[in-house]
Amino acid sequence: MRLLTVAAAQMGPIAADEGREAVVDRLLALMDIASERGAELVVYPELALTTFFPRWHMELSEANHYYETEMPGPATKVLFDEAKRLGIGFCLGYASLTAEGRRFNVYHLVDKTGETVGIFQKVHIPGHDEYESWREFQHAERHYFEPGDDFPVWRAFDGIVGMAICNDRRWPETYRVMGMQGAELILIGYNTPLHYDPDPTQNALAGFHNALVMQSGAYQNGAFVVGVAKGGIEEGVDSLAQSMIVAPSGQIIAQCITTGDEVAVATIDLDFTKTYKHTLFDFAKYRVPDAYRRITEQTGVELPPEKI
Amino acid sequence: MRLLTVAAAQMGPIAADEGREAVVDRLLALMDIASERGAELVVYPELALTTFFPRWHMELSEANHYYETEMPGPATKVLFDEAKRLGIGFCLGYASLTAEGRRFNVYHLVDKTGETVGIFQKVHIPGHDEYESWREFQHAERHYFEPGDDFPVWRAFDGIVGMAICNDRRWPETYRVMGMQGAELILIGYNTPLHYDPDPTQNALAGFHNALVMQSGAYQNGAFVVGVAKGGIEEGVDSLAQSMIVAPSGQIIAQCITTGDEVAVATIDLDFTKTYKHTLFDFAKYRVPDAYRRITEQTGVELPPEKI
Repeated sequence: MRLLTVAAAQMGPIAADEGREAVVDRLLALMDIASERGAELVVYPELALTTFFPRWHMELSEANHYYETEMPGPATKVLFDEAKRLGIGFCLGYASLTAEGRRFNVYHLVDKTGETVGIFQKVHIPGHDEYESWREFQHAERHYFEPGDDFPVWRAFDGIVGMAICNDRRWPETYRVMGMQGAELILIGYNTPLHYDPDPTQNALAGFHNALVMQSGAYQNGAFVVGVAKGGIEEGVDSLAQSMIVAPSGQIIAQCITTGDEVAVATIDLDFTKTYKHTLFDFAKYRVPDAYRRITEQTGVELPPEKI
Repeated sequence: MRLLTVAAAQMGPIAADEGREAVVDRLLALMDIASERGAELVVYPELALTTFFPRWHMELSEANHYYETEMPGPATKVLFDEAKRLGIGFCLGYASLTAEGRRFNVYHLVDKTGETVGIFQKVHIPGHDEYESWREFQHAERHYFEPGDDFPVWRAFDGIVGMAICNDRRWPETYRVMGMQGAELILIGYNTPLHYDPDPTQNALAGFHNALVMQSGAYQNGAFVVGVAKGGIEEGVDSLAQSMIVAPSGQIIAQCITTGDEVAVATIDLDFTKTYKHTLFDFAKYRVPDAYRRITEQTGVELPPEKI
């Protein structure tokens, strides 16, 4: 057995004018609760330090205050210090502006000693780039972020850990690329508005789809998944909460039931991943990559020839 | 709107000594029910003409009577004739032994005029090759079948149709390869024993996993999925029924509720696939194939380096 106690530290809304210090105080409170419940790793949502600013379309130069230029920085150092003092690891989502001026939506994994394990850059950037007047609110992530190009995994917490962010979780490739590297624990932060302007028939299915993709991704790769939301009505936009911890069986083993700051904890056995990785999903034995070529050789759809 | 009425024609057990004629009579009865309910396409299970013989390990030469060497053949021609008379298409699963002596687990799609649309060869062959004495019953598909190496799609029934068989449905690559070709309707036949010898903790989850993979595959590719079982206790082995028709939303829109011969019908609008294919799952806009390379460059897992 390789037991690990993990916490999904869901957050309620963050107002546009809520300062970093106030947000970090909330993160510290969640960390303390998680630690008291025995957690060795606490997982925060995507963009956990600010409001979900892609709902507005601004000049990039006017949005710089939403990005972190160093991590830890002045406001976040206390989080690293407290985690180290408690001996708890954490995973934090934020907007990153690099010294070269590049902008990424990142997830930052820190171990129990306060050392950075790895930083993941969101790959599947949803929404749009230009301002779109027909929307109730913008989802301009493609204006604010460039995509990452890999789903690496790291040896950490006595297992193999990968990360993904929000829209990444809807794509089976996300889990599979990590599964190909033996991922046992996949951490996913998200902000998911309940209203989807391009097709409102999907609104009422937001919770179903959220669970469906994380449960299938966990099952099909024999991995635990920790999905952590920022939920509730933030600056007028209601977002899905329903943070959850999913087992390699696809079963939900812990779930948040509010839309605010809340901690869900589960003690997982990373060796349980073997019951799927070594049986039904023995990749080396059963996968047929020759049949999968279109997945990497095409970006978009290539329709079959029209009938004559 | 491109409306199509499809029928999932689930079958109960087929005894080892049940002859082709008796089985075809059952298929005809199901076809008649489907046709009366307005179906334009009736989908039968995997290996719909015989018992699920891979539960026994025989010499191949002793198993030849379980394979079809021609389709239609003497016993199955009446099915083709009746379908043509009714103006209904069908999809039939059976074991195929080719003139070259090759053995495939196939799904055979026939249009409303009785013409063959395409034949799919199962890609993901589960189970084992050699006799394994520790099992309650064998699952020797890897003894009886060689794998296909593609998931083609065909223009048929006024849409784009693909096929998969049983274990194929557990692999996200299956749906994705068809999704890359614009598949709007994916037909899947299966025989799924409720007891899984390599890990019986999965037994009670058989129905959950069955729905999970078909619902996520439908949603993530904006396609309808028709999953059709052979269920019930066949030669002492209980198998999952729960045939279902799933929408691109991931929602189950029709389902069989018995474990025997039963027809579930749904009228679907193939244009509804656009609500997913043209929004959230606009592949050309959102996919990042550079990040997916491990899916086709590796067969098995490649673990990250050990820490030093």
